[in-house]
Amino acid sequence: MSQAVIDDLMARQGAVRARLDAFLRLPSVSADPGYAEGMQAARNFLLDWLRKIGLSDVQLLDGGGQAAVFASWEGAPGRPTLLIYGHYDVQPPAPLAAWRTDPFEPVEQDGRLYARGASDVKGSTTIAIEAVAAFLRVTGRCPVNIKFFLEGEEETGSPSLRALIRRHGALLRADAMISADGGRASETIPTINVGARGIAGLEVALRSADKELHSGRYGGAVRNALHEMARLVASLHEADGRIAVSGFLDAIPDLTPRQRADTAAFPLDEAEFCGEVGAVAFGEPGYTLRERLTLRPAIDVNGMWGGYTGAGSKTAIPDEAFAKITMRLVPGQDPERAVALVAEHLTRLCPPGLSLRITPKSGNSPASSLAEGHPLLRAGSVVLERLMGRTPVPVRLGATVPVTALFKELLGIDTLMFGFNLPDEDVHAPNEFFHLESIPLGLRGWAMLLAELSGMSEADFAPFRRAA
Amino acid sequence: MSQAVIDDLMARQGAVRARLDAFLRLPSVSADPGYAEGMQAARNFLLDWLRKIGLSDVQLLDGGGQAAVFASWEGAPGRPTLLIYGHYDVQPPAPLAAWRTDPFEPVEQDGRLYARGASDVKGSTTIAIEAVAAFLRVTGRCPVNIKFFLEGEEETGSPSLRALIRRHGALLRADAMISADGGRASETIPTINVGARGIAGLEVALRSADKELHSGRYGGAVRNALHEMARLVASLHEADGRIAVSGFLDAIPDLTPRQRADTAAFPLDEAEFCGEVGAVAFGEPGYTLRERLTLRPAIDVNGMWGGYTGAGSKTAIPDEAFAKITMRLVPGQDPERAVALVAEHLTRLCPPGLSLRITPKSGNSPASSLAEGHPLLRAGSVVLERLMGRTPVPVRLGATVPVTALFKELLGIDTLMFGFNLPDEDVHAPNEFFHLESIPLGLRGWAMLLAELSGMSEADFAPFRRAA
Repeated sequence: MSQAVIDDLMARQGAVRARLDAFLRLPSVSADPGYAEGMQAARNFLLDWLRKIGLSDVQLLDGGGQAAVFASWEGAPGRPTLLIYGHYDVQPPAPLAAWRTDPFEPVEQDGRLYARGASDVKGSTTIAIEAVAAFLRVTGRCPVNIKFFLEGEEETGSPSLRALIRRHGALLRADAMISADGGRASETIPTINVGARGIAGLEVALRSADKELHSGRYGGAVRNALHEMARLVASLHEADGRIAVSGFLDAIPDLTPRQRADTAAFPLDEAEFCGEVGAVAFGEPGYTLRERLTLRPAIDVNGMWGGYTGAGSKTAIPDEAFAKITMRLVPGQDPERAVALVAEHLTRLCPPGLSLRITPKSGNSPASSLAEGHPLLRAGSVVLERLMGRTPVPVRLGATVPVTALFKELLGIDTLMFGFNLPDEDVHAPNEFFHLESIPLGLRGWAMLLAELSGMSEADFAPFRRAA
Repeated sequence: MSQAVIDDLMARQGAVRARLDAFLRLPSVSADPGYAEGMQAARNFLLDWLRKIGLSDVQLLDGGGQAAVFASWEGAPGRPTLLIYGHYDVQPPAPLAAWRTDPFEPVEQDGRLYARGASDVKGSTTIAIEAVAAFLRVTGRCPVNIKFFLEGEEETGSPSLRALIRRHGALLRADAMISADGGRASETIPTINVGARGIAGLEVALRSADKELHSGRYGGAVRNALHEMARLVASLHEADGRIAVSGFLDAIPDLTPRQRADTAAFPLDEAEFCGEVGAVAFGEPGYTLRERLTLRPAIDVNGMWGGYTGAGSKTAIPDEAFAKITMRLVPGQDPERAVALVAEHLTRLCPPGLSLRITPKSGNSPASSLAEGHPLLRAGSVVLERLMGRTPVPVRLGATVPVTALFKELLGIDTLMFGFNLPDEDVHAPNEFFHLESIPLGLRGWAMLLAELSGMSEADFAPFRRAA
């Protein structure tokens, strides 16, 4: 069944490309109200397209911000229902002067398709829709139940996504999600993403006196809020880079030989990784760079300030100091517990008499994992191996993916990232492009994945779904 | 001789007070160009007054900013020449609404004279002029040679004072300076100021990468500029408060039993001192609060910043961090050497690969001391003991006095502070006042001091003057 679909997709690549070009010409910049028409045009383009290929329930879902585009096909009772995620909004094209071609007029050159959104993520979104369309066209049905969810504000941090999912939870109910966003890590080594670090944060305010004090009258006699904040911040790590917060690392299981082998299979050149941004490698001893980035937590002070920061000098002892702290969490760590441990650590080290105010940041989320044995992980691995001729390396992300974290939190479902964009495609930058050879590869991949999933049932997913 | 002068001064207190009231009515705010007329009126008031009492060379001295008022009497060949320092400018009266009376209309209430500048420092300046005037009026001469130097921009940090002294150095040549600014430390315990701490500073800029890095992609793998700046700042002091910069304390002689006894003679209540500003006592072990404030150096970070400091959070690893550092220095310490030692310390502790930029601050000055045996110290002590019935306690200031430091640097002369204002007089604040009983006390004190100095010669001062 799937070979006929793949043959059809390969034969119709001109049409696929024409559709992608048309999509790319619509300037759907969500961050800038000046592009409201482009956003509207992109929504209409998708609504029209999804109706034409035979999907049902085609509609806009409103959460108070940019509406999402929804469409479903539910003609496979007993088979799993997969939410397919993509987004139709793009980053602003600024700085325009740095573009060699019009960001909203796709141009092909040397096997690359240049346009804003080509890589992030209209290319991969188009691939996903075309794959479903081909099944419907060639076979009259889809191997599994499908619900498209194409977001309109991913590039602005999804401000209304939580409200939208809460409002339309029943419609969005699914067994798992496949995301067209979140691309490949390498052109040659197939990888499959099996998780991402979580995030939590807090703000720290320290007060050492009622007011700024003159350093001539008080210098040497009293606590200085900045000295104490510096000590507190410095105390978060040992001199060798290991996190020094008592208990912070306790809940994290030791790395398994399998995990170590997996990260080693997709090595990172430390000198190159740091050199390209002028950074200095540093971190917890006993772990490779990629292990530190993906399998071990991190605590970073993102901002710190106090006292006089203007031109010249001011001989005052600051009475207040502030710091913003976030942490990246790994499986085993609970965000609230992690924040509490850091707060306890700071409170314990804060000298008596000073006033320490700690405010946990909202929007925390735990690390996510596609559990071993998850049907999407099995299906994705099989497909990638067949597609690339090599067993995919399971990789984890060091970052947090808020969209998938939110679907996990609110709907209890896991996400397989199955985008085909590559890391060199200048996303968010001028001259963004998409490698054209990713199009046939991605079309074959999506067709094979949907076919593979047809052998599974809702019951296969049940053990991995959390009650939402 | 001096008793007749004192009798005259005591008999003419109504006239002294009328003169002070007239001086206080002139709104000589140097910081605000809107008060240019008041500044002009104050200058004219002083020029006129100094001429009328019989001084010579009465003139304005220009250094490019607010002119200073100068006048001299040099009819005592062989006797020392004393520069008498005061200033005619005052702080702005803002916030006006907080004043209970018009800041430029002196009002007497409960033994206090309320007006802007009453304490700082038109009261004490008037006392000094009236004392000289009384000698000239009663005896036809002054016991010593006198040069008045009445500055017009003390309240704005004396921006043109250096240029002014350089330009008019020959005219300002003297054996020592007596300052009407720098008041009494206590109403009951007589004190005599024998020195002040010096000052030096530097700015530190630290760079850890070419740009801000995403904490999801780099967190746990690379150095964070703020973590390193926090470590550097924290490293300046031991946990117990002692300065940890190698060599920084080496050049400072041990406290003598005499110094310890002197500071103990004028004790500071630690709880009260800290309590009134909500501060937390902390500093070098082994020293009392007053010893730490005056006889031991201090290093304070006055400002520190880096990364994201706005609302909400930003998951970025900062690539830059900054700190402003000043230190208060004591006798034995060279400001440039002190800065070099701190720079060496920071450079040694900065991890390899990071870029550390250290910029010494201009305007450093060493600690100043009125050396034991200095004629002004001897004369001042004798007078205060007679005046107050108690041997004055030698005290040092924790702050730096830029004006006296500058006269020492450029003209090689020391300063005796002989103002009569008291610490509770709300200087720089609304409802500034001057204790009226300080007027007869100060008049007697200045008359006795000038008389006492008449027994000394230029040669007595020579060993204490540095070649300018």
